[in-house]
Amino acid sequence: MSDIKKVVLAYSGGLDTSVILKWLQETYDCEVITFTADLGQGEELEPARRKAELLGIKPENTFIEDLREDFVRDYVMPMFRANALYEGVYLLGTSIARPLIAKRQIEIAEQTGADAVAHGATGKGNDQVRFELSYYALDPDIRVIAPWREWDLTSRSKLIHFAEQHQIPIAKDKRGEAPFSVDANLLHISAEGKILEDPWEAPDEHVFSRSVAPEEAPDRPTFVEIDFERGDPVAVDGARLSPAALLTRLNELGGANGIGRVDMVEGRFVGMKSRGIYETPGGTIWQAAHRAIESITLDRGALHLKDELMPRYAELIYNGFWFSPEREMLQAAIDHSQAKVNGRVRLKLYKGGIQVVGRQSPDSLYSLEHVTFEDDAVYDQRDAEGFIKLNALRLRLLYRQRQG
Amino acid sequence: MSDIKKVVLAYSGGLDTSVILKWLQETYDCEVITFTADLGQGEELEPARRKAELLGIKPENTFIEDLREDFVRDYVMPMFRANALYEGVYLLGTSIARPLIAKRQIEIAEQTGADAVAHGATGKGNDQVRFELSYYALDPDIRVIAPWREWDLTSRSKLIHFAEQHQIPIAKDKRGEAPFSVDANLLHISAEGKILEDPWEAPDEHVFSRSVAPEEAPDRPTFVEIDFERGDPVAVDGARLSPAALLTRLNELGGANGIGRVDMVEGRFVGMKSRGIYETPGGTIWQAAHRAIESITLDRGALHLKDELMPRYAELIYNGFWFSPEREMLQAAIDHSQAKVNGRVRLKLYKGGIQVVGRQSPDSLYSLEHVTFEDDAVYDQRDAEGFIKLNALRLRLLYRQRQG
Amino acid sequence: MSDIKKVVLAYSGGLDTSVILKWLQETYDCEVITFTADLGQGEELEPARRKAELLGIKPENTFIEDLREDFVRDYVMPMFRANALYEGVYLLGTSIARPLIAKRQIEIAEQTGADAVAHGATGKGNDQVRFELSYYALDPDIRVIAPWREWDLTSRSKLIHFAEQHQIPIAKDKRGEAPFSVDANLLHISAEGKILEDPWEAPDEHVFSRSVAPEEAPDRPTFVEIDFERGDPVAVDGARLSPAALLTRLNELGGANGIGRVDMVEGRFVGMKSRGIYETPGGTIWQAAHRAIESITLDRGALHLKDELMPRYAELIYNGFWFSPEREMLQAAIDHSQAKVNGRVRLKLYKGGIQVVGRQSPDSLYSLEHVTFEDDAVYDQRDAEGFIKLNALRLRLLYRQRQG
Amino acid sequence: MSDIKKVVLAYSGGLDTSVILKWLQETYDCEVITFTADLGQGEELEPARRKAELLGIKPENTFIEDLREDFVRDYVMPMFRANALYEGVYLLGTSIARPLIAKRQIEIAEQTGADAVAHGATGKGNDQVRFELSYYALDPDIRVIAPWREWDLTSRSKLIHFAEQHQIPIAKDKRGEAPFSVDANLLHISAEGKILEDPWEAPDEHVFSRSVAPEEAPDRPTFVEIDFERGDPVAVDGARLSPAALLTRLNELGGANGIGRVDMVEGRFVGMKSRGIYETPGGTIWQAAHRAIESITLDRGALHLKDELMPRYAELIYNGFWFSPEREMLQAAIDHSQAKVNGRVRLKLYKGGIQVVGRQSPDSLYSLEHVTFEDDAVYDQRDAEGFIKLNALRLRLLYRQRQG
Repeated sequence: MSDIKKVVLAYSGGLDTSVILKWLQETYDCEVITFTADLGQGEELEPARRKAELLGIKPENTFIEDLREDFVRDYVMPMFRANALYEGVYLLGTSIARPLIAKRQIEIAEQTGADAVAHGATGKGNDQVRFELSYYALDPDIRVIAPWREWDLTSRSKLIHFAEQHQIPIAKDKRGEAPFSVDANLLHISAEGKILEDPWEAPDEHVFSRSVAPEEAPDRPTFVEIDFERGDPVAVDGARLSPAALLTRLNELGGANGIGRVDMVEGRFVGMKSRGIYETPGGTIWQAAHRAIESITLDRGALHLKDELMPRYAELIYNGFWFSPEREMLQAAIDHSQAKVNGRVRLKLYKGGIQVVGRQSPDSLYSLEHVTFEDDAVYDQRDAEGFIKLNALRLRLLYRQRQG
Repeated sequence: MSDIKKVVLAYSGGLDTSVILKWLQETYDCEVITFTADLGQGEELEPARRKAELLGIKPENTFIEDLREDFVRDYVMPMFRANALYEGVYLLGTSIARPLIAKRQIEIAEQTGADAVAHGATGKGNDQVRFELSYYALDPDIRVIAPWREWDLTSRSKLIHFAEQHQIPIAKDKRGEAPFSVDANLLHISAEGKILEDPWEAPDEHVFSRSVAPEEAPDRPTFVEIDFERGDPVAVDGARLSPAALLTRLNELGGANGIGRVDMVEGRFVGMKSRGIYETPGGTIWQAAHRAIESITLDRGALHLKDELMPRYAELIYNGFWFSPEREMLQAAIDHSQAKVNGRVRLKLYKGGIQVVGRQSPDSLYSLEHVTFEDDAVYDQRDAEGFIKLNALRLRLLYRQRQG
Repeated sequence: MSDIKKVVLAYSGGLDTSVILKWLQETYDCEVITFTADLGQGEELEPARRKAELLGIKPENTFIEDLREDFVRDYVMPMFRANALYEGVYLLGTSIARPLIAKRQIEIAEQTGADAVAHGATGKGNDQVRFELSYYALDPDIRVIAPWREWDLTSRSKLIHFAEQHQIPIAKDKRGEAPFSVDANLLHISAEGKILEDPWEAPDEHVFSRSVAPEEAPDRPTFVEIDFERGDPVAVDGARLSPAALLTRLNELGGANGIGRVDMVEGRFVGMKSRGIYETPGGTIWQAAHRAIESITLDRGALHLKDELMPRYAELIYNGFWFSPEREMLQAAIDHSQAKVNGRVRLKLYKGGIQVVGRQSPDSLYSLEHVTFEDDAVYDQRDAEGFIKLNALRLRLLYRQRQG
Repeated sequence: MSDIKKVVLAYSGGLDTSVILKWLQETYDCEVITFTADLGQGEELEPARRKAELLGIKPENTFIEDLREDFVRDYVMPMFRANALYEGVYLLGTSIARPLIAKRQIEIAEQTGADAVAHGATGKGNDQVRFELSYYALDPDIRVIAPWREWDLTSRSKLIHFAEQHQIPIAKDKRGEAPFSVDANLLHISAEGKILEDPWEAPDEHVFSRSVAPEEAPDRPTFVEIDFERGDPVAVDGARLSPAALLTRLNELGGANGIGRVDMVEGRFVGMKSRGIYETPGGTIWQAAHRAIESITLDRGALHLKDELMPRYAELIYNGFWFSPEREMLQAAIDHSQAKVNGRVRLKLYKGGIQVVGRQSPDSLYSLEHVTFEDDAVYDQRDAEGFIKLNALRLRLLYRQRQG
């Protein structure tokens, strides 16, 4: 006999979360509210609604939302202002989606009077942490149910058996083990597990779905121009686009040119290392372009400080601390720096590679008159002597100590 | 009438440093010692010797040295252990060569009783700073002569005129302005200035000399395997190579596949921004491979600390502080981390792009038994609940404050 | 014949800046505007006005301003939100005053059409840097005159001689060398140079002027309560005070109890080390109280991030980069953290020492129910096991590597 | 029926660990090995041996060790090289002792073939984390028993009842609740809990045991001179002392002068805030002296880098990550900086306060000739202009952007 009355489940409509749905009803004898969001994962939402209703969820209890614009505007954009990279290569495509889903679950729980939330993340991954830290940060008294840590459906066959017993429809291709697990949203798609677990083995081409192989990409480069305002991209090739439309467009460009594939081994917050295959075609272009526009509009002091803060910022997002005061503090610093990050970047996309080939800005700090080799009025070369002498002074004093 | 008696000049044998040579003799009425080093810039050294002698330098005063192995072993390798990138993209190819040249100049000055050193770097760039900070750190009493900051040869025509007056041979193609200026060593070749100064204009293909254009690279990928020991590469495709030979081999592979081109605007230490075109074919492969081998051999704590320290480390090298206690402190931390960075990385090179496709190590921290989805003995999924709960506790307490 | 027409001089009314005033008139044949600010240095301003007029400055060219509230509100308060300490001990009392003086000089220059500014800082200190970086940041085209770096009045006797020649009144006690040099404002008073230059010799008691010696302080402790709102102190012992009045009150309390003396050797930005004696009675109490109120109102994540950013922030202020984007970025992060730093701190002041003895807040994060040893509902001790196990996992995996 | 055969218990001889001893025998039906270390807590060890034997531990299973020299030399000294302070005030006296105790337990377990270790830390504190992270880092397969998280002796009366039932002698003053809990070693003594839990209430004087109240300290100051070699103190007032003897001597001096009391609220790693009262008399003197000797022997670059790394380093020790690669990396950097930290510091101790009054070193970087106000040969004041101009250049360029 459970004390949980109503639970908001992050529901994809797939087999696993359908099993969770039934398991929740059965185990906790509680009302289940399904929340299905379109974050750009590329799947229809209506089937999820129908499936939820098929499983006995009341229409008023199936929440279906298109959050693509919220996702890009309020999560992806702030993160890309920071040039966030986890462990030097990962653009945090999965990590950045979790806080938004969790936030909406908590809001729906409040709205519907639910006392619990549930997710379908496993007990070994980072996503459980990201979901639950967000839940607790937004409602410290919420009850959290993590079925994968609680139930005894510890093998695929048990899961299938449970589904069969509960009349949960099973797509034919879901009967066997999936060869790897996938997470997708508008920013990226990831694959991990099973056939990908040997880090010495390259992934098969069929693992990839958002990008053509570089070898299959066009033989002629594609050029693209991206406009930035206050650090955020606002137009592609002159066409002003909403945040989600813009990222969609960059994904098309990147995907067609084989851009944004990452094959990495990463250190999970829960302690072990895992291997992930990521495709982030649009995000990869975005970050390259953002760095390029920053290179002419950000002062060196601001730029270097950003670079020093970035690894910490990326780690916070990876570990699930989006809703933490330290992430917000770093965001405040980063956002402050972006006020004049305006202008246009031109890039060449070719068979998996990106080359910045031009950048211009009404707020450019690049000063031709300062940089030319000729003698000039604005820069007295003799100043350099004093500059060097005083920078060297402490090293000169140190020399004697070291000889002593 | 100068008080300088003997000066050690960093001498390339080219027109500019030949003019400097003569100008030093004339201006300071002093003995000039030429120092010409092979750092892998791809030029013969003997012509420099002959030219120096032609300009009146005594044979015992012409120092010619092959420093390629020293360069890679003692400068490039320590730097690559740090995954150093300046402003997110620059592999510091010019910056890392200056300390070694300066060090040898100071040693030769000591050996020959010279009281001064001179270099051919201009008064607006970073190289003057890098040379001179190194000089002063290694000999606080050395006299430094920076002709470009002192003389009145402030235009190309004045320089040519001076050369003609002093019987300095002028190669035909040196009469006019060079369309851009170049610096090269085994790690990279850079181009900047003149025709490259508009950051909106892409560089012409003829600016590049170490790499084919991605479009011209082979239509089939090249695979390469690199072995690491204690953080340094030691073999390519199974062939054990000396540091310089190894980098040479990586340059061949990278150059043939269009790898390692960077077009950037960077913030100079002396305060302005400048645009540089860099080719670092081997170094680009090296860094990708090093990150990959670290990904399975470095603990997350060590890896993240390295990432946080890296921007500072890169800035120190860029700014010329190789011989500073803070660079050495960071190096001590970085080197400590590399004791078990051993193993093999497999990469795919294709038309400008690098893809890591495999990594293995006798010291791998990647544990298949910990990462598999199945229930297991080594990892109790219920631990995750406590882990999350205690990580969340402060956020939950914070919630009430924020509502208050 | 100079091209400078009008210069705004930071003028104290003392001998040195009076000499500068005359020297400027003579050397640059320009109009001089004097700017004298009350930053709480404890001197009357009117004598400075009279002296300026005596030296021929037109009444409309003598600017006299009481900036004490601006100083504390806009400079000291933001800095104390950061708990800034330079090299672990210095509260930056001199450093933080320079940007405000420079800012007003630039504003007066704009208002009066002056084309130059001048200050009385010497060529070996940090203050010249702080003044001039601020000048240039606020008006990149301003002309800066630093008489101490330009003139030949390189000894005390030459200076006195110049003063006598120009009918500058010389106070009797100013004829000889001052035994040390002093800088003062509402935050602190500093002494350095001459008799203080041997870092092995303790300063004489007469060097101190803002605080009694601890031995002379009352034999019974003084208790004080300070209220904070959004990170700033707003009341002392229940009495709400303006920023400057509050700092004045803390100075009285601290000074009477021998608090806030620092005797240190510091690393100057210009490269050498110098010894300084600082008295910051009120500021020392302030920082202790601020840390105490933060200890119950700031989340650990925010607090630790602040501690990590602080040394950089302090260095920026010390080096004169108040008006830099990176200081502003750090300030944005720091200020973001202070929204709930509200409450009251109780301190015991006694013979040079400060002891925090109580802190309370309506926004306290300190939760008695969480911290008590008893078993409780809000904290499940078994969570700790999972927390530790997952934090330990990477170390356990590492063990095998290290044994290998 | 347990599978644990032999457990090494960190045993103090007090009531709590005696109860644990019996509870382990009873619950796990296993052999118990007691380990009692003298870390300078100020208690005799032999009574612990006798009590263990009284409780049925075989003589060969009672390990008693004087680890004071190991503690100071291998743990306290490295930590003090870093000037470690947690949250700005705490000298980490408890934190630094745990790794050593854990290390010895693991070594004894290996030596005696034990398969488990146990400690007496509660489930809400940091110490359980520090013990167990150290255990796991040094033996990933060790079994860890944390009785306070496992048993049902959740109140004082249950504990006393258990003791009575098992013939565990109970000292009269241990029958009731202790008014607060205490931890002690040669570096510090801490008090927390119960009567100290209201952070607005000042602690009673009887809470303190290592230091007299400042009011009770001598009316005349005590002067002390400390000699450092390579960053570590080696002599007090000219008398060369072993590490533990030296810290003992500093404790006497500090304690007699009321030095080293801290009353703070700190953020625990497990998520809540707690209030602690610490006395660290010798350590407080040590850190002040170490900073002073660094101030004349450490280059600014090294010193500032240390200050920036310190908060992270302190956090690692506080959180229990002594045996982690990132702590070791930071230690490598810190230790590298200390090679020339040699010399003598003179301090004045007076009624709770410490004043540095002198510092000297054969390796001093303080250069009188550079710092004097006079014109000099070693420093050309005009260099400052160039130094400032180039430091200002980026700010000047920025101005136009900001106006734009």
